[in-house]
Parts: sequence; C-alpha cells; structure tokens
Amino acid sequence: MVRGRISRLSVHDLRFPTSLEGHGSDAMHTDPDYSAAYVVLETDAEDGLKGCGLTFTLGKGTEVVVCAVNALAPHLLNKDLGDIVGDFRGFYRQLTSDGQLRWIGPEKGAVHLATAAVLNAVWDLWAKQEGKDPRMLLSCIDFRYITDVLTEEEAYEILQKGQVGKKEREEQMQTQGYPAYTTSCAWLGYTDTRLTQLCSEALKDGWTRFKVKVGADLQDDIRRCRLIRNVIGPEKTLMMDANQRWDVPEAVEWMAKLAEFKPLWIEEPTCPDDILGHAAISKCHNRVIFKQLLQAKALQFLQIDSCRLGSVNENLSVLLMAKKFGVPVCPHAGGVGLCELVQHLIIFDFISVSASLKDRMCEYVDHLHEHFKYPVVIRKACYMPPKDAGYSTEMKEESVRQHQYPDGEVWKELLAAQGN
Amino acid sequence: MVRGRISRLSVHDLRFPTSLEGHGSDAMHTDPDYSAAYVVLETDAEDGLKGCGLTFTLGKGTEVVVCAVNALAPHLLNKDLGDIVGDFRGFYRQLTSDGQLRWIGPEKGAVHLATAAVLNAVWDLWAKQEGKDPRMLLSCIDFRYITDVLTEEEAYEILQKGQVGKKEREEQMQTQGYPAYTTSCAWLGYTDTRLTQLCSEALKDGWTRFKVKVGADLQDDIRRCRLIRNVIGPEKTLMMDANQRWDVPEAVEWMAKLAEFKPLWIEEPTCPDDILGHAAISKCHNRVIFKQLLQAKALQFLQIDSCRLGSVNENLSVLLMAKKFGVPVCPHAGGVGLCELVQHLIIFDFISVSASLKDRMCEYVDHLHEHFKYPVVIRKACYMPPKDAGYSTEMKEESVRQHQYPDGEVWKELLAAQGN
Repeated sequence: MVRGRISRLSVHDLRFPTSLEGHGSDAMHTDPDYSAAYVVLETDAEDGLKGCGLTFTLGKGTEVVVCAVNALAPHLLNKDLGDIVGDFRGFYRQLTSDGQLRWIGPEKGAVHLATAAVLNAVWDLWAKQEGKDPRMLLSCIDFRYITDVLTEEEAYEILQKGQVGKKEREEQMQTQGYPAYTTSCAWLGYTDTRLTQLCSEALKDGWTRFKVKVGADLQDDIRRCRLIRNVIGPEKTLMMDANQRWDVPEAVEWMAKLAEFKPLWIEEPTCPDDILGHAAISKCHNRVIFKQLLQAKALQFLQIDSCRLGSVNENLSVLLMAKKFGVPVCPHAGGVGLCELVQHLIIFDFISVSASLKDRMCEYVDHLHEHFKYPVVIRKACYMPPKDAGYSTEMKEESVRQHQYPDGEVWKELLAAQGN
Repeated sequence: MVRGRISRLSVHDLRFPTSLEGHGSDAMHTDPDYSAAYVVLETDAEDGLKGCGLTFTLGKGTEVVVCAVNALAPHLLNKDLGDIVGDFRGFYRQLTSDGQLRWIGPEKGAVHLATAAVLNAVWDLWAKQEGKDPRMLLSCIDFRYITDVLTEEEAYEILQKGQVGKKEREEQMQTQGYPAYTTSCAWLGYTDTRLTQLCSEALKDGWTRFKVKVGADLQDDIRRCRLIRNVIGPEKTLMMDANQRWDVPEAVEWMAKLAEFKPLWIEEPTCPDDILGHAAISKCHNRVIFKQLLQAKALQFLQIDSCRLGSVNENLSVLLMAKKFGVPVCPHAGGVGLCELVQHLIIFDFISVSASLKDRMCEYVDHLHEHFKYPVVIRKACYMPPKDAGYSTEMKEESVRQHQYPDGEVWKELLAAQGN
C-alpha cells in the first residue's frame, strides 16, 4: 500500500572537493568538484520513511539546479504519494510540461536535472514502501514524442517476453552480479606514475575492462594509452572517452591515431546534440535524442545516465527502445551516487528487458561511496544486487552536514584557505 | 575605441502578468506571464554607458535563470570590455565551456538562456561604443562542432559576397523596412469574437501575413482557422504553430485536416530535439541542432531566436549556415524584447548575408514594447531599422521597478489579491 502526503521537500547543495586530487578530470572538465543537488522528501505517514534523490553536478551551477528544484516543489508539496505514483505518467508530464517552467528546458538543462533529482526521491520513497509489476512500470512512462518508434503496446510485449527465464537471471545476479568496468584508473589529471600504479592494482583486484580519458592532447593520449596497454596487456578491454572535445572531422582524424590501442568504443567524440555527426554518443539529455540515435543507427552502445534523464520513468523508455533496436546498454556512472542509482536500472534491464549480458557492462568509479547509507557492493569486478529497499540514494547525515556548500565544515575550511 | 572595465553586473527577475488576458497562450503554454531575466552591465569608463541584455521566459523559472546569470557573473566582473570583445570567440567559449558549469547545459536550458542574457548586454554596450566589420564579426563566432558544415573561411567568403549591393539594401531598409508577420491576433486563449476583431483591425493596418496557434483541439483549430480565412481571405499568408504539442504520427494526421486552410508552414509540430522527426522546426537551443536540421533537409524555413541561442555570436553562425544551405530565415519574435533584439539580426542578414527578401519575414507581436527605451518601429507591416546605437535592449527604469518579481508594485498587488 502506498501511503502518506508529502509534507516537506528539502534540497541541499552538496559539493565534494574532488578537483584537489584531479579525480574526475577529463578533456572538457579539468577541475570538477563532484557535487549533487540532494533532495529529501518527508511525508505525514507514521512509517517515518524518507525519499532521497539526487542529481549529479560538477560544483558551480549546483545552486542553479537547487533553485530549479525549489521551482518544482509546489508540484509535490501536500500531494498524496498514492496520487503521484497512481498516475505517474501524468505526474511526470506535469513536472516536465509546466506551462511556464518548461520554457527554460524543455526536458533539458538545469530544469531536467532538477526533475531527475525530485523523481529519484519519489522512486526511493515508493520503492521503500512496495514492489512493482510490468503494467505499473508502463504507467510511469511518458510516451510523448516517441510513439513513432515505440508504442505502449510494444513496450508491454517486451516486458512480457522478459518474464521468461526471469527467475534464473535473478539468481545469476545474486551469485555473480552485473559486469562492471572501471574509470578510476585513468583520469586526465593523473600522472603517468599514478596511472600505471592504479591500473596494476585494478588488475590485481580482478578488473578486466578499463576506460581512459582522452582528447586534450594527441601525443599525451598516445603515451598514456600505450602505458595502459603495457600494463593491462592486449586482451583486456579498453574504452576511450573524449567528453565532447572534438569537431566531427577532428574526431575522425584523432581516433585514427588512437586505433592501434584497440578501443572498444569512443565515447562522446563531439557535441552531445549532434546526432548526425555521431558514430557513438552518450549522456543524452532525454529520450527523444536517444530515439533518434537509435533510428539513425548512430550508436553501437547506448549509455544511459540515472541523473541526466528524468529518473526511472524516462530511463525505462530508453531501455525499452534499446531492446527494440537490439543495441546493448552500457550505463554511464561514477560521479556522486550515479553507481548507486544506475545499478538498479541495469540489473532490472538484464532481468526483465534485455535478458542478455552480451557486450554489456556498467561503468564503475571508486569515489565517494562512503557517504551513502547503502553503498554499491562490487565483487570480482561485478555489481552485486542491492539488498535494501529503496533507490540506494540516501546519504549519511554527517556527510550531508559536512559538504553543504558553502556552509558545511569542509567548505568553510577550504574557502577560508582560498581567502574567499 | 572600446573602453571600460566591467564594474557591476545586476540582474532582475521581471514579470509581466500577460496570463490575465490570455496573451501568448498556445497549446503547450496556457498561462504564460511574459518575463525576462534582465541584465545591466556598468563599467568604470567615464562615458557612463550601460549594457542592457535580457533573455525571455514565461514566469516561473525566471528565478532559475537569474541564478544562472549570477553563476556566470565572475567571468565578466573586473574584465576589460576590450579584452572581452577583442577575443569574443574565446570569451564565448569561456562562458559556455566553464569546466564545472557546462555540466548543467551544455549550451542548452537555463544556463544557455543566461549566457544569452549576459552576452546580449555585452553586445548592447559594445554597439553603443562603436561599429563592426566582417572580420570582427567572424572573430565572435565559436565554430566548435560546426566545422564539418561551415568553416571560418567559408563564412568569410559569404560575408565578402554580402558586400555587393549592400548600400542599396541599406537604403531599401531605411525606406521600406523589413517585412513582418503578426502573431498578435490569434492566441489560443482568445475568444472567437476577439480573434475576428483583431484580424479585421490588423488587415486595416496593412498586415498581410498572420500566424495562428493550433494543436490543443482539432475541432477548435478547424473552426478558428476557418474564421480567420473568412476574415483575411484566400490570398493572404497564414502560418500555424503547434508549439511542440504532437507526436510525429499525430502531427501528420492533424496537419492533413488543417491543410485546407493553406498554411505556409507548420511551426514546432513536435519535440524541439527531434531532428529526424521533423519536416519543419524552430526555437532550437543551439547551432548544433540547427546544423543538423539543415544537413537533414528537415526544415524549409529557419526560425532563429535572439534569446534562446547564445546572443549575436551564435546567431551569426546560424545565419551563415542558412545562407550556405539556401534556406530562408524567418525569425521568431514576440515575448518581451524579442522583437527589439531580432530586428538587428534580420536586417543585418538582409544587408550583409542573404541579400534577399524572397520567402522571408520576421514575426511581430504587439505587446510590451512600451517598456523599452528604444522600442521597435513598425510601418505598413514592416520593421523600420533602429536608429539608436546599441541592441535596443534597454528598458525604462520605471518598468523595471514596477515589474520586479515578487517585490515590484505590480506583483505586490497581484500576489496580495491571490492571497499569497
């Protein structure tokens, strides 16, 4: 039974000073402070359960997303959770189609990140209360703008077919987990020594799939890729990520030079809005972009993001379209909390939609998990299924308090040291 | 000579309660309060000139854009205007590629609207100080992500060719102005009586081109289009705008039913991100979307927006690409200040780029011009060239004071009446 009226929505600007160590650095984001707009929903129900949700940001601009969350808040406050999830498609559309607010999106940028944070919190709260079935899942999806490619009936058929062998796949997940790859070893801001050391350690820990950041300087890239291949050998899997650094002709030229290192894919070679210019792309901002990439056969691997799309609702529609087009989903993760969230999506995809692990893996980055109450569990380079109810989004109170920007202890000290 | 160091950036949340009268209402935006994030730049130069810029919004969410403007402010404060416009391409990229802030875009949503507001103010200030030449204009354009379609050399050739006959076209603009069409007569929220009356009046004032909002209800649309055709007759030009209301198959079906009213174009039939699904589209959020629409031959008319793209800088690149592909530009305008801004772009396009008026016209809406110090001048359904230096963005102090949200007089009264 779904229960409770939403009595409070609070949102926090949390920042982690990852730029101090070069964590997360790439060709376009040289000094990211991994951050989150972190939403907590409370209800008047006696169970005392809270819904926690977040969207991931890089420091500056988090305050803009916080502001957008506050702009969405009136749509949630004093609503019954039952009414929200009872017509979740309608509620999703209410948030994304507000007649005034949609102008500053629609379904993109700060306001869509805020939508993700808010809806992630609703899913967390709902999941803490009860389970789901296929019909219920379908009723969460807004099919607007994608019916030319996927109708509700087709989506239902896919989920029905996904029931076959479901139990076996659940057991497989419980014992072996979902295959992961690591991005922790090769950030652009790391020294060669650190790179080599981290790759060796990861190998020892059982990692067989690695991602390296490229795109800022070709000679650097060649040196770093050679270093990595020397450590991991020719058989292990290597992916590259240019984080939108190149123009289209530049991407073709640059990748020709890096081909000798045998990358499985090149991620974000150019602008994320450039569908026609792409051979592969990721971190799209909504289902309509993904739809076209599939239609245009412009990607070989589809990388969803739990915080850039409009929460589970929109990710469901993308998983279903990927299944229809036969393209493997390899989620983007890392950041703050992205691994915690996306594991739910990809394990659900395996159990209920794709039913396959062929060419599939989920990104993993080993940072900031210690701030979560229910952190991911990685075993032998695989994500083990989460055991606690909810969307694994809840952070420790202590972590929230310390990392609030600009008043938490961590930032008070750092900003004082910077003389701000 | 460019002069001054930017000593102050202030930003105002201005809202006009247009929803009270149904002005601006369409199938997706039923109750818009035309609004603006309004930026004023001051320098330490003795000339006392101010740069005013804005981006257009619909009420709620303006505070989010204001927050984004404040996030961009450190890039401008204490900078010399000469350094900014001296490497304007670099400065544009600095704003749009901030390593942390770009995550909440990039080049889309609230943060890109904020970029437009800030850069519009820079252009206003710069234009108040001095004139431009082709080379200088080129140095304002960031060609990142569009070099596969338009290089700097090609752009220069286009502008060079545009010098031929320039003087004659300047004179033509001075005497006849740039052809406009009106959207003031047929908002979705207007009654049939009002619709008929406004169309008759517009006819008398010399208007020959009209746009009607459609998409909410087919029978309503048929009745309203018939009414309008009855008033304006079969020879006048009629455009339709669905404001993103339909899925792709729905758009095809609906438009078949409205074809008898002979629309010249159908604007925004579906999601603005859906390049492949389009036969015509507008209000794209950046040059990369426009590039693909041109590549995919997915539009017959290109509708730029002075406040959704990154100011003059990004609009220049789109005008040049449209010229290369031979697609006529018919700007979107209306809102608050869009007409004031876009007239500069389209008259420049005619004089220096397209050199043609064939199939070309600029939208006009007759609202809120009274708040501007240098409002547009319309004569015989044509935009007359602005005579004052600057980007015509400056608003009257009194207007700014009264419409600040939520503390201006207008809003104090309205909010009190609503019991907030």
